Amino acid sequence: MFIRKLFYGWKDEYQKDVRYGLKGKKLFEHKSKFQKITIFESKRYGKALLLDNCWMTAEKQEKQYHECLVHPALSSAEELNNVLIIGGGDGGSARECLKYRELKQLKLIEIDKDVIEISRKYLSGIGNNCWSDPRLNIQIDDGIAWVKQVKDNSFDAIIIDGSDPKGPAKGLFNKEFFHNCKRILKSKGVFAAQTESPEAFERTHIESVKVIREVFKNADPLYGNVPIYPSGWWSWTFASESSRRYLNPIIARSNQISKTCEFWSPRWQKGSFDAIPAHLERKLKS
Amino acid sequence: MFIRKLFYGWKDEYQKDVRYGLKGKKLFEHKSKFQKITIFESKRYGKALLLDNCWMTAEKQEKQYHECLVHPALSSAEELNNVLIIGGGDGGSARECLKYRELKQLKLIEIDKDVIEISRKYLSGIGNNCWSDPRLNIQIDDGIAWVKQVKDNSFDAIIIDGSDPKGPAKGLFNKEFFHNCKRILKSKGVFAAQTESPEAFERTHIESVKVIREVFKNADPLYGNVPIYPSGWWSWTFASESSRRYLNPIIARSNQISKTCEFWSPRWQKGSFDAIPAHLERKLKS
Repeated sequence: MFIRKLFYGWKDEYQKDVRYGLKGKKLFEHKSKFQKITIFESKRYGKALLLDNCWMTAEKQEKQYHECLVHPALSSAEELNNVLIIGGGDGGSARECLKYRELKQLKLIEIDKDVIEISRKYLSGIGNNCWSDPRLNIQIDDGIAWVKQVKDNSFDAIIIDGSDPKGPAKGLFNKEFFHNCKRILKSKGVFAAQTESPEAFERTHIESVKVIREVFKNADPLYGNVPIYPSGWWSWTFASESSRRYLNPIIARSNQISKTCEFWSPRWQKGSFDAIPAHLERKLKS
Repeated sequence: MFIRKLFYGWKDEYQKDVRYGLKGKKLFEHKSKFQKITIFESKRYGKALLLDNCWMTAEKQEKQYHECLVHPALSSAEELNNVLIIGGGDGGSARECLKYRELKQLKLIEIDKDVIEISRKYLSGIGNNCWSDPRLNIQIDDGIAWVKQVKDNSFDAIIIDGSDPKGPAKGLFNKEFFHNCKRILKSKGVFAAQTESPEAFERTHIESVKVIREVFKNADPLYGNVPIYPSGWWSWTFASESSRRYLNPIIARSNQISKTCEFWSPRWQKGSFDAIPAHLERKLKS
């Protein structure tokens, strides 16, 4: 009993004089070429992944993030022949994309191969069957550089599933990158990106939405909850050139997908696009 | 410098192997007849109130809670002659109610007079001018017993602003109490209650909504965010006998109130009633 207690402790993420911690024990830690990767077995949410001491995902608390990032885009894009994920090395976004039977090819560009290897080993429930799905093509590369050499109009949907704008994910929040995303996306395709917490990282959130709106004709933030992330309040932003088509899931697809979801539903999505706090609505207009 | 550091530390709320902490220093602690009352000066959110080591409110992070609890009810009730708050000793809900110029009388029943006294002294920005508003009538009493002796159809709106269902707030989550609230509420009045976190206290949340639905003909949960509460994801439930009138703010009132709000707006409210996670929608139907 005494020995067991020695192994259990608290692991906290610190942000701006606030901390959020889970009880459990560290299973594995590794310094990759890009970042510190930690696997922590938490009592509450199962095995969790941290990058540079920030909570990224956990086995029993990842659906609200991955469902909310993927489905507003994939349920509304005109076609699903070619879909691109930048980041997403834990496999959760790929798993949600591969639920669409009509999806033909899914390209995943992850900068850090160690994130994929460690996720496949320790967090196999998150990627689930995605790793063996023949439609998935993984490439280890810098997504910011990679998109520059892709041909115009190549993808039906693009999902940016990166971490906070520091370290390897820094360039995922700038205008040139978004311009390249627009260029390689079909005009009736849909772009999706996690755009940080409207509370803990309010300035980054507002700037990201504004920059995406400068690049795409149509773009809107959607608000939801990821309790392991700073403040628990999160956002994703969706964009498309031709129309605000991401507001309206295609019914046949949403009927197929809804059953498999714990958080996402067409109703939830409709509400979450409107659930913008008054002060942010004012700041985004100004 | 060394001495200053000695005073600063972390204060955490612990729930189910998760902790949420703020950096700062304890200013005051007192054991009242009902609970431990702590005032903590946090670096991030200013002075904060804890009851029995749980975060209740903080100067710079209380509007999302109080605006979301009060305005869906008060913007939609038929009249605002008499409004009742049970709990709410920090004054935040009273402040939001008193924004309505047509409100004539506001009764606040708080069980613990020390919460009011300490809030008035340390958190004066939360109650603000409410304490000197002649429309406010404070009574120190047990709200659960008090409602039993109130005449039928006495109030236009009832706001239940209690803490978690343990300690003095336990009886605020049961059927007999809700029945009394319905009895003393006018049929075109609106009932509002905080109904806990759909994540950290999922079972309590679901049971509360179900019981309120057994008592009132119409009742719906609304979902939002209070970062200092467990999981950051919170809910409030609104009910009315005559119709789901709480879904539709009266325009003249919402025009008056919106300008003063940081979080609440008719658009935010509309979205937040729909932003119900798929698994909860299924559980609430069953």
